[in-house]
Amino acid sequence: MHIRNLSNLECTRLLSGNRLAHLACAKDGKPYVVPIYFAYAENYLYAFSMPGKKIEFMRANPEVSLIVEERGHGREWKSVLVEGRFEELPDRIGHKRERDHAWSLLSKHFDWWEPGALKPVTPPISDHSEHIFFRVFVEQIYGREAKEV
Amino acid sequence: MHIRNLSNLECTRLLSGNRLAHLACAKDGKPYVVPIYFAYAENYLYAFSMPGKKIEFMRANPEVSLIVEERGHGREWKSVLVEGRFEELPDRIGHKRERDHAWSLLSKHFDWWEPGALKPVTPPISDHSEHIFFRVFVEQIYGREAKEV
Repeated sequence: MHIRNLSNLECTRLLSGNRLAHLACAKDGKPYVVPIYFAYAENYLYAFSMPGKKIEFMRANPEVSLIVEERGHGREWKSVLVEGRFEELPDRIGHKRERDHAWSLLSKHFDWWEPGALKPVTPPISDHSEHIFFRVFVEQIYGREAKEV
Repeated sequence: MHIRNLSNLECTRLLSGNRLAHLACAKDGKPYVVPIYFAYAENYLYAFSMPGKKIEFMRANPEVSLIVEERGHGREWKSVLVEGRFEELPDRIGHKRERDHAWSLLSKHFDWWEPGALKPVTPPISDHSEHIFFRVFVEQIYGREAKEV
């Protein structure tokens, strides 16, 4: 396998073309990893979340790490690692355009996008009002590609 | 979708039947997430790693979080979240049996198991002597299943 670094442009293309990431956050030295669905736009990853452990952790410590992976042919792959900062976007401070855009991209992942936070016996969700809307500012980005030689 | 908690037995079965996890570790409040390949045995996840950031982080703070996911039919899934502690297993303190067992299970993922740590222009790896062998003691385990209703 030949491994090469991806350019910044290749990294942001991969983020634009994918929805699923694994996000790590940490509070008081305890890390926590969960899958999330996101929509990338202009150096931010936008996402919705039910209230729960990851929101509690990110409110306490906004530093996060995310990885997005794309499988290629055979054993080929690309991955992008993001170091970023959590920012909560309450309804009252605007961001309606970003919220609607992210919701339109993400709502099709609706009933299984939250494997970690979706609680047993959660009632069906009829709209997105109970979700917390947040974004991650991309501070650092690293990408790699593995190609068969 | 119907969501239910998995029993401990179901969780350990899922860990036994899978190899790929996402691991989060944290140092000085900075989380870091990477994919790893592991082999489960008797309340431990065994893994190999090239030296690098995650080893540096876990040596500084052994607390880790891992998630293992299994896709089912359609949009069904199961996931197991592990809270655990990193333990490094140098050759000199034994663990040959566990090492050989883990190596035999994991060596087929050989040349792409380390998307995060595999450096561009790394020379081909001819044996496992340069890898760090470690395990994660499973302290807490949580599992969920989503089934179509």
